[in-house]
Amino acid sequence: MTDLQPLDNPVRIGVLLFPGFQALDAFGPLDCINILSRTSNVTLSLLSHTLDPVSTKYSETPGTTGQEVVPTHTYEAPPPLDVLLIPGGRGSRGSGPIVLAAIRFIKDTYPSLKYLITVCTGSGLAARAGVLDGKRATTNKMAWKDMVALGPEVEWIPHARWVTDGNIWTSSGVSAGIDVTLAWIGRVFGEEKAKMIAEGIEYTRHEDPNYDPFAELYGL
Amino acid sequence: MTDLQPLDNPVRIGVLLFPGFQALDAFGPLDCINILSRTSNVTLSLLSHTLDPVSTKYSETPGTTGQEVVPTHTYEAPPPLDVLLIPGGRGSRGSGPIVLAAIRFIKDTYPSLKYLITVCTGSGLAARAGVLDGKRATTNKMAWKDMVALGPEVEWIPHARWVTDGNIWTSSGVSAGIDVTLAWIGRVFGEEKAKMIAEGIEYTRHEDPNYDPFAELYGL
Repeated sequence: MTDLQPLDNPVRIGVLLFPGFQALDAFGPLDCINILSRTSNVTLSLLSHTLDPVSTKYSETPGTTGQEVVPTHTYEAPPPLDVLLIPGGRGSRGSGPIVLAAIRFIKDTYPSLKYLITVCTGSGLAARAGVLDGKRATTNKMAWKDMVALGPEVEWIPHARWVTDGNIWTSSGVSAGIDVTLAWIGRVFGEEKAKMIAEGIEYTRHEDPNYDPFAELYGL
Repeated sequence: MTDLQPLDNPVRIGVLLFPGFQALDAFGPLDCINILSRTSNVTLSLLSHTLDPVSTKYSETPGTTGQEVVPTHTYEAPPPLDVLLIPGGRGSRGSGPIVLAAIRFIKDTYPSLKYLITVCTGSGLAARAGVLDGKRATTNKMAWKDMVALGPEVEWIPHARWVTDGNIWTSSGVSAGIDVTLAWIGRVFGEEKAKMIAEGIEYTRHEDPNYDPFAELYGL
């Protein structure tokens, strides 16, 4: 079972942004948080290595389209956070200085968090920060092999829309971020609120964490 | 049936951004377009009234959370566009100068478009621009009454995930934007590509345009 953590008021949520993050990994959860904030006391910070706009474009695929999002804080000067959400995306790969800065921030921040939520290959960043060691976790199913290799001490669960272990919620690929965020909101703020948000965005939720047709699709 | 329009290469897609746009209305479709751009020749422009970052925050609810996205073009100096996608959101309401500028842009741009796609209350902006007159269209189901009032000459379809009429694709609320975008990609770029994107984002698509449990939920 998930530990229900005592939370401050407001609940201070941070979302990590790095160049090449997957747009929907972040904006599925963010849309839910935006709606949540209309009726619950939450703050939101968008954290990156600098305050320059962060593009979803992956630098190694220059012909692709992308969007730039403006961070609110740097890793060097973060606000106090209760919750950190880590999206995935192609930019989570490799060992360039920007990726390493994100991993360092996760490692430094995790001990003071009440909850950590990852979407897609964001769990690879969390694994590399060591915070998933000894924990049950899941990740993007298309990128499964690469992610599992990043966390040899993690108990990876191949068939899951999302997995909870203690205060860590890890989800499967991209759109699973919406489901894990709604499940987390349901647990922390009450199921009625999660239902209201899902209905507001006309989203047919996957409420079963074991729902995962993509595990089979990708041969897991 | 939907008219299949001859398209240029690259296909030039624009997305309207106005203060108070709904994050997922835009970023569900945008994520699909970003993935599409890895294997198809498309360009993307983000259009707004100025080049300043555009917040999803609705000015009349100052305590809420939001994100700022950087536009690439203004309404005054737009690139040639084949496709315009219009998100909805609370900022689509009212008759302030920024909303009126968006409506004017839609009105001016529509005649040269190959396709117009709306998500959620984005159809209200299109209706106010007059481009839905005499057409079948749908919109957000929670905001149904308000939207219908904006387009008395529109043939509003209350029970639909999305509706096509000629080159106009209108969808239901928020997350329906993902389904209409995938359906449009399937029609224009081929179903295999739509399937590949949906599987890549681990999204269980609604492929039936008549799927709409939210019509009943909201008493339509």
